[in-house]
Parts: sequence; structure tokens; C-alpha cells
Amino acid sequence: MTKVRIFVTYKPSVFDPQGDTIKKTIHNLGHDEVKDVQVGKFFDVTVEGTGDQVDATVKEIADQLLVNFNMETYTYQVMEEHQ
Amino acid sequence: MTKVRIFVTYKPSVFDPQGDTIKKTIHNLGHDEVKDVQVGKFFDVTVEGTGDQVDATVKEIADQLLVNFNMETYTYQVMEEHQ
Repeated sequence: MTKVRIFVTYKPSVFDPQGDTIKKTIHNLGHDEVKDVQVGKFFDVTVEGTGDQVDATVKEIADQLLVNFNMETYTYQVMEEHQ
Repeated sequence: MTKVRIFVTYKPSVFDPQGDTIKKTIHNLGHDEVKDVQVGKFFDVTVEGTGDQVDATVKEIADQLLVNFNMETYTYQVMEEHQ
């Protein structure tokens, strides 16, 4: 059993309106020390199996469901792994 | 300058309907090896300063803006730090 965290973010070329709005709101709260905000989502996914099997599952569910490759990109990291 | 990633998740006691729906959709795609899905959001925040200053800023913007403490909780990690 493996627990992975899949991070989905906008591609660098895509404007992040939510991040921009949050940054302005943070400035309105008086925190001018905050220079940039970018927003993303993540999926904590528990998968039966380990290693290559899990890599294959992550790639497939990212391709088929979780990521809009027109605007988004993803990375993932293994959080826990048990044989 | 410090870049932190702030992770916001539902509290364990709060049902995550989006995660549950995604899990069912993944099963419909044939990936029964996926046992659990939980959804969260993250904020990549670039802050002027380092160390305790940054910790204070993160706490204040989480408390004042980013986190709904009725349903959510947060953690954060430093991704990059430059003097």
C-alpha cells in the first residue's frame, strides 16, 4: 500500500487569477512582505501496491481524470509506502 | 526571501465529498487498486524575510484568510530560503 500526494498547478505560462486576488487581499490586510501567491490543489491517493505499479496508476489517473493538460501540470511524491 | 507551501485540508472528522466522488470515478475507470482519495489545496507563498518573521506571516494569513478553521486545518513547509 502506498500513499502518494499528487500536486496539480497551473503551467507557468497560465495566469493564476485566484492567486493574484489572494495576494491583493493579503496586501489589504497589511502584509506587504508577501510578494507572490500561487494556488494549487493536491490529491492524497492511497494505492494498493508499490513502486512501478503505483507510478503507472498515478500516471493513468492523472492523464484520464485529475489534470487538465491544456492549463495544468502535475508532480507527485510518495508520502508512505508499506510492502 | 522565503518560499513556503501552505497545505489546507479538511479536518479528519469532516467528510470530503469531492475526494469521495473522485474515488468513485477512478473506480469507474477500472482502477480498483485506488483505495482512498482526499482533496486539498495549497498556496505557494513568497515572503520577504526568513525564519521567525516568515512563520509569523504564515500564521497570520492562515488565521485571517486562507483557512476555515471550522472545517479545515493547515500545515506548511519551507520550499526555498535565501538570506
